[in-house]
Amino acid sequence: MQILGIDPGIGRMGWGIVAKNGQKISPVGFGCFETSKNSPPEERLAEIYAFLKSLLSREKVDTLAIEDLFFNTNTKTAFLVGQARGVVLLLAAQESVPVHVYTPLQVKVAVAGYGRADKRQVGEMVKVLLSLESIPRPDDTADALAIAITHAFTAPVLSGR
Amino acid sequence: MQILGIDPGIGRMGWGIVAKNGQKISPVGFGCFETSKNSPPEERLAEIYAFLKSLLSREKVDTLAIEDLFFNTNTKTAFLVGQARGVVLLLAAQESVPVHVYTPLQVKVAVAGYGRADKRQVGEMVKVLLSLESIPRPDDTADALAIAITHAFTAPVLSGR
Repeated sequence: MQILGIDPGIGRMGWGIVAKNGQKISPVGFGCFETSKNSPPEERLAEIYAFLKSLLSREKVDTLAIEDLFFNTNTKTAFLVGQARGVVLLLAAQESVPVHVYTPLQVKVAVAGYGRADKRQVGEMVKVLLSLESIPRPDDTADALAIAITHAFTAPVLSGR
Repeated sequence: MQILGIDPGIGRMGWGIVAKNGQKISPVGFGCFETSKNSPPEERLAEIYAFLKSLLSREKVDTLAIEDLFFNTNTKTAFLVGQARGVVLLLAAQESVPVHVYTPLQVKVAVAGYGRADKRQVGEMVKVLLSLESIPRPDDTADALAIAITHAFTAPVLSGR
């Protein structure tokens, strides 16, 4: 099973694909897609859509994992992030990729074993769990991988295995 | 010139197309597109996208008018509305329809001539300005038409005419 984790944003969208074979997880690819501040929002959303569509055509993705709304944010940020998240969810539906949603707390518990883990601790655990040389940068990339890992660990529980 | 006004929402999306010929404005079509509460968000976003895409293929639309982020809302609502708005903006970019953004205050001033106008007053003015038999229902539809009218009144000023 290959899981695409997404940390949505209109300026920076972290993404990471994790493969799960039995109990083993490994990285397939990850990165951070950036759009220009100088472009109008609708162009930036179209760039995000085109990038993700291309990614889904190149890589095998069985499921998409994404965070639930961010409780620790303000209205303006929620509105901006919401727009990017809407585009991601839309594409998942159009490409028939099932969506799984996790809260930030669930991600921290799944990856770091500790609900109050900070970004550095989550990044460190992503590095260890995926046997990477270093913590993926920027944080958006590490967060996207953390969400994918969360689904890799949680899916067997959800399906009763 | 034909202007599509959108009042975005994941459950109810108001839409209204207004034609402007010289100083005269007239309604081309309007309504409210609803999605089922029982469907997952990604399916509802895909339905909104498909509906709007079909609308743009049926009707001549030269420009899209939409409200800026809602200052009077909470984070959760902003997040939900943002997702629907992201899908609308994405489609506008994909279909090369220019986007114009207005604040709720600009819409009230343009349509009712009064920044503290309430929903009923805005609805009443939409009815009068478009020579309709009654105020369009639900509010989402009237709001979408109000945004389209705002652009019809504002575009000549913006372009220096």
